Amino acid sequence: MLSKNQIKYISSLKIKKFRQQEQAFIVEGAKSVQELLASDYTVEMVVTTPEFLQKYGSIQSQANVPSYTASASDMDRLGTFQSNDSCLAVAKTKDNAFLCAQNKEYALMLDDIRDPGNLGTIIRIADWYGISKLICSENTTDFYNPKVIAASKGSFTRVQAFYTSLPDFINGHPGSPVLVGAFLGGASLYDFKFPSEGGYLVMGNESQGISADVGQLIGQRVTIPRFGGAESLNVGIATAILCDHWRQQQSK
Amino acid sequence: MLSKNQIKYISSLKIKKFRQQEQAFIVEGAKSVQELLASDYTVEMVVTTPEFLQKYGSIQSQANVPSYTASASDMDRLGTFQSNDSCLAVAKTKDNAFLCAQNKEYALMLDDIRDPGNLGTIIRIADWYGISKLICSENTTDFYNPKVIAASKGSFTRVQAFYTSLPDFINGHPGSPVLVGAFLGGASLYDFKFPSEGGYLVMGNESQGISADVGQLIGQRVTIPRFGGAESLNVGIATAILCDHWRQQQSK
Repeated sequence: MLSKNQIKYISSLKIKKFRQQEQAFIVEGAKSVQELLASDYTVEMVVTTPEFLQKYGSIQSQANVPSYTASASDMDRLGTFQSNDSCLAVAKTKDNAFLCAQNKEYALMLDDIRDPGNLGTIIRIADWYGISKLICSENTTDFYNPKVIAASKGSFTRVQAFYTSLPDFINGHPGSPVLVGAFLGGASLYDFKFPSEGGYLVMGNESQGISADVGQLIGQRVTIPRFGGAESLNVGIATAILCDHWRQQQSK
Repeated sequence: MLSKNQIKYISSLKIKKFRQQEQAFIVEGAKSVQELLASDYTVEMVVTTPEFLQKYGSIQSQANVPSYTASASDMDRLGTFQSNDSCLAVAKTKDNAFLCAQNKEYALMLDDIRDPGNLGTIIRIADWYGISKLICSENTTDFYNPKVIAASKGSFTRVQAFYTSLPDFINGHPGSPVLVGAFLGGASLYDFKFPSEGGYLVMGNESQGISADVGQLIGQRVTIPRFGGAESLNVGIATAILCDHWRQQQSK
């Protein structure tokens, strides 16, 4: 069984300050834990309930990953995920290492995405479309927030994030990076040709859109055509549509 | 101020049984309430906090809609929406009236969409792409669930839903309706031509996909091409990508 100190440690990882201090984060749900164990993340421990072990057997584990059991009520206190099926893991976070798009590659650039569900959804979409790099503004919600990890449905193991000042990143970028920004009032996405040399798809904040500081550096402004009465699309939906158009053009 | 009976009445509308009995539902948040008041829904009442009135003035109201104030703590008990900015309305639901796609029109057909957030997102997407009709299986989550209404961001005023048995609907449909279903393992969406006569875009349950009963009636099976490691896309995302491709083809 988990000790009281271990319970306290795991619970503390719901809070960003403690995740940064401990360089560790929580992954909830059997499927996400299995993807974690198959990834290159260093896993500190796996925790399951006795009922889970009885029903599903033990989680296939990496060598030397300690396994613990916790009561269902302790598990509830540990996690944040309502539908957690009684399994979680603690893993080490990765360093905030520099990332940039290589030749012909597109990366996502996220300008203050605040909602953890949206960031998790964007990670899952990036993974679907084979985009493995996110360049995030410093105010974008934390990649290791348990709600982000849960919403990414395991895709957090295949997508990396680099948090930085976006204007500094763009101004310090070798060459003139291609920046394609999603705006209301840009050119129709249906007439747009994604530059074949690769670059960055820039997505803005849920209510403010792309900030002025970043917007003035963006060369290509595109808009998803609208046919009805809705004022806007969710940022995750908009990201998916941009990625889909890029991949469709590439595959022709 | 609201009476105790009114508070009890409004609170009861969080539950489907009482919404059906009273033929009424809750709309939360100033922006959604304003869209409601501008729509053809019959509004029973608008409720705001005194602080809200002081800060923003009264909500522009239809003629003869009673307005009440409630304390912030009563408002919390009335609503379900965490970020409710202290304004809600009660409106009459519409009858479950028959709908079908007209010539050259596409409607969405939803086969057991269970998550209210997903249904609300789908309503918003339909509205963006100018689709005004949803044909919903009887087990699809209730259109008037407060979480659906909130997630639709006002688009519930421009999109209608008809709940029915989908196999009966399809078998009883005049002519042979065009049914385009989103499956894993269908033809690539990038090679697919949406029939110009219109029809139905069929989206399946979050975990089970399209049911066997409905699936066997679907003539056109399409798949959104995948380029990375994610196993699936959220049903709202998939709906948006299908609608976007249809509209893009139409606009060429």
